[in-house]
Amino acid sequence: MKKKIKAQLLFIIVIIITLNNLYGKEVPQWGIFEISFKGTSAGNPYTDVKLSAVFQYKDITIEPQGFYNGNGEYIIRFMPHTQGEWTYITKSNIKELNGKTGKFVCVSAQKGIHGPVSVRNTCDFGYADGTPFYPVGTTCYAWVWQGDDMVNKTLKSLKNTAFNKIRMCVFPKQYDVYIQNEPFCYPFEGSKEKGWDFTRFNPEYFKYFEDKIASLSGLGIEADVIVFHPYDGGKWGFDNMPREVNERYMHYLVARLAAYHNVWWSMANEWDMVRSKTTEDWDRLFRIIEENDPYHHLRSIHNGMKWYDVSKPYITHLSVQTTDFFHIQEWRNTFKKPVMIDECVYEGDIPNDWGNLTPEEMTSRFWQVYCRGGYCTHGETFMHPQNILWWAKGGVLYGKSPERIAFLYKIMKDRPAEGVYPLYNLWNKEMQLIKDKEYYLFYYGNAQQKSARLRLPKDVNFRVEVIDTWNMTITPADSVYSGSVEIKLPGTLWMAVRATKIK
Amino acid sequence: MKKKIKAQLLFIIVIIITLNNLYGKEVPQWGIFEISFKGTSAGNPYTDVKLSAVFQYKDITIEPQGFYNGNGEYIIRFMPHTQGEWTYITKSNIKELNGKTGKFVCVSAQKGIHGPVSVRNTCDFGYADGTPFYPVGTTCYAWVWQGDDMVNKTLKSLKNTAFNKIRMCVFPKQYDVYIQNEPFCYPFEGSKEKGWDFTRFNPEYFKYFEDKIASLSGLGIEADVIVFHPYDGGKWGFDNMPREVNERYMHYLVARLAAYHNVWWSMANEWDMVRSKTTEDWDRLFRIIEENDPYHHLRSIHNGMKWYDVSKPYITHLSVQTTDFFHIQEWRNTFKKPVMIDECVYEGDIPNDWGNLTPEEMTSRFWQVYCRGGYCTHGETFMHPQNILWWAKGGVLYGKSPERIAFLYKIMKDRPAEGVYPLYNLWNKEMQLIKDKEYYLFYYGNAQQKSARLRLPKDVNFRVEVIDTWNMTITPADSVYSGSVEIKLPGTLWMAVRATKIK
Repeated sequence: MKKKIKAQLLFIIVIIITLNNLYGKEVPQWGIFEISFKGTSAGNPYTDVKLSAVFQYKDITIEPQGFYNGNGEYIIRFMPHTQGEWTYITKSNIKELNGKTGKFVCVSAQKGIHGPVSVRNTCDFGYADGTPFYPVGTTCYAWVWQGDDMVNKTLKSLKNTAFNKIRMCVFPKQYDVYIQNEPFCYPFEGSKEKGWDFTRFNPEYFKYFEDKIASLSGLGIEADVIVFHPYDGGKWGFDNMPREVNERYMHYLVARLAAYHNVWWSMANEWDMVRSKTTEDWDRLFRIIEENDPYHHLRSIHNGMKWYDVSKPYITHLSVQTTDFFHIQEWRNTFKKPVMIDECVYEGDIPNDWGNLTPEEMTSRFWQVYCRGGYCTHGETFMHPQNILWWAKGGVLYGKSPERIAFLYKIMKDRPAEGVYPLYNLWNKEMQLIKDKEYYLFYYGNAQQKSARLRLPKDVNFRVEVIDTWNMTITPADSVYSGSVEIKLPGTLWMAVRATKIK
Repeated sequence: MKKKIKAQLLFIIVIIITLNNLYGKEVPQWGIFEISFKGTSAGNPYTDVKLSAVFQYKDITIEPQGFYNGNGEYIIRFMPHTQGEWTYITKSNIKELNGKTGKFVCVSAQKGIHGPVSVRNTCDFGYADGTPFYPVGTTCYAWVWQGDDMVNKTLKSLKNTAFNKIRMCVFPKQYDVYIQNEPFCYPFEGSKEKGWDFTRFNPEYFKYFEDKIASLSGLGIEADVIVFHPYDGGKWGFDNMPREVNERYMHYLVARLAAYHNVWWSMANEWDMVRSKTTEDWDRLFRIIEENDPYHHLRSIHNGMKWYDVSKPYITHLSVQTTDFFHIQEWRNTFKKPVMIDECVYEGDIPNDWGNLTPEEMTSRFWQVYCRGGYCTHGETFMHPQNILWWAKGGVLYGKSPERIAFLYKIMKDRPAEGVYPLYNLWNKEMQLIKDKEYYLFYYGNAQQKSARLRLPKDVNFRVEVIDTWNMTITPADSVYSGSVEIKLPGTLWMAVRATKIK
């Protein structure tokens, strides 16, 4: 019986590999090349089988880990970063999965795909192809687990926004009256009632989750994947699993998701509220990502009341919860990393003190953070008869800030790609982005000043525009400016001024 | 000739003292008892003459310093804190001024006079008679030096507000286009053109200044007297005088002003911008006040970019410039002193980044600061054709915040006198003043929440009121509340909720 299965397995593998070779499979740059083997489902493949493949292009080798996908299926996923012919050879402690070879051709990227995002110029972000990435994020912690209809509604909503990053949890979430529902399946075998078999993942859960990452890729959205979070409430216990389970889960997640170009690793939401883990636990989990994600996707961890030591080398950027924006420039200078303000309270009207910003304030916070050299994340929490709040479940956006955030995003994309930095002096009151002698973006926030004083370089001519960040208008001032100038403003709130060198 | 003067002097002194004794002069508690002698004007009385008097009531002795008032007049001022008969004896290095005795009766205070303000219950303020003092301050740096018409206009304006503290400089001020004018006289003999004789004060200057302090007393307003400031611009050089001049000036100011019950000492505005002085200079100046002000008026120093070490024992309270209110509770806990936010930007519309708050925001900052356990100071900077900005010159108030600040002041006075403290936890987002089981004041700021969740004690019945801090309405909720309750709000900005124990 065992012999027969092995023979069948061998036959299937040979077929797959042969077909791959015959057809000279083509994979777009930053797409996913997937090797799939049928193999044994005897024993516990989740814990017993080791599997990886060494992919080679010229003298570059990359070794992603494989994973068991249930029903006797083993998968290795690979995201090629360079066009040309890649070969591979598998490695496994199971003879039948070991030493298999193949090749494919990496061709040019699909339209709109720029590769994974990483840190660019110390405090900014950029895609692998060199295109700057200016994050304008949103937050839908548990949107994946709201059923297909809601999921599709969320994707449709996202399509009509400028949001290009979304914070989303792997595990289901429970919080106050706002989110209480169960996912349609669970990440582990077993049940809430009878207990989980933490040694066996439920591939269906992860398959569903990663399909959503693929959908987000289609919309040009980065998935800021939250690996752990504290909002379990004893309902499932996923915030409080044994150490070796957390680590196996981390390995499994990396093996499954890392080949998706649009993945970011957010180790935890409000890490300090996840009481069950020590700093050493978090460190070890970060190292698992570092050692096993061959693409070095962005890694961070989000604070509640207490900051993690974000200076640690495996933390690529700050993912801050705060309503204090005065220190963004200082944080840039201290940590030499990009600063994402991933929670600065949400647009909405719920009584919780983190969920009742006006759209004006939500928009303004995006501008404040941006003009201090950081990037901001949106969320929406309007009271809803069925408790469908975007921040937790996705669905429909009711707020007025997303349209304004999209307007800001256009302003962002129009800035010079290189050399832009925020003003930082000891007073630290003004909000300005600067490219010396070329570009100045001033934001005035909730001030009602009737004019703006600019100190522009004397020897350069500038075009000056008054930007109404709320009404989304850009009005050119009727002159050419240089040196110290005073620009008339309407005396209404939420104004910005942009000065651009005339070429 | 010298002999003749001495004889005349003696005669005059005898007359004055005799008259005082004959009439058994009465002085109200916390009023000013003034001894005036005619004496020599030969030499330099400002530097040569030492003069003080020891006042005694039972076993209490207090020794205020005297000062030379020009034209051969020597004055010692004394503010009695206790009713009953006080005697005194003068001390001087000039024989004719030495050993003079007299007495007066301290009677009950004038209506509305509660004595000097000092620290009460660690982080609050109170008058000498035990009445709590809740500061609602304003700022008119150079109002005294704008001529009688403007001065009277300012006093008239103040009368129609709730402001009970005013920040005001002794020296004239120069700042940007907004204030450029000269005072009608100067604190020293000499002139801008020919140079100052720093060894000789001009008593006219100080007399005029202290008369304004008396006028403020009549309006129930504390004079937060700013001893030094950096906004001299090389025009007068009063920010950059020799060390011994600063110290003599400090002595002179204390001798003249300390007997006014409504004086506070603000050592400097933006002390760190006064580049000419070292920390040792400031320390020494503080010690001069400490050693010579027998009434221990409040003492502080106001920061620009950098904080003075406010933990020093002679600093009675914090006088902070900041727009960051998140740390008020922490500062209270760290320094165990009251926190005054003496500049948090002003209501107005000028281009300077410290002068263009909306009235809504100015009002909200008062509420934010207050509900975090501090006290706030107002200022107004609306553009004006003649550059008459309240913040510098006084005059007329155009803003909409003073009326709302008066409304807040009524709320302040209605709180329990004892045991009120601000909520302080690690999240530190909510703004609440609490007296356990008796009084809860919640402020929601620029949030649009549709309801408020209160966690009140279960075993106490509360009256709950919804306060619209902008429209200045107080609407009682239609029930008696205890425990965890949800209160409907209109979903508009600037709301507060007050829960008061039903007795």
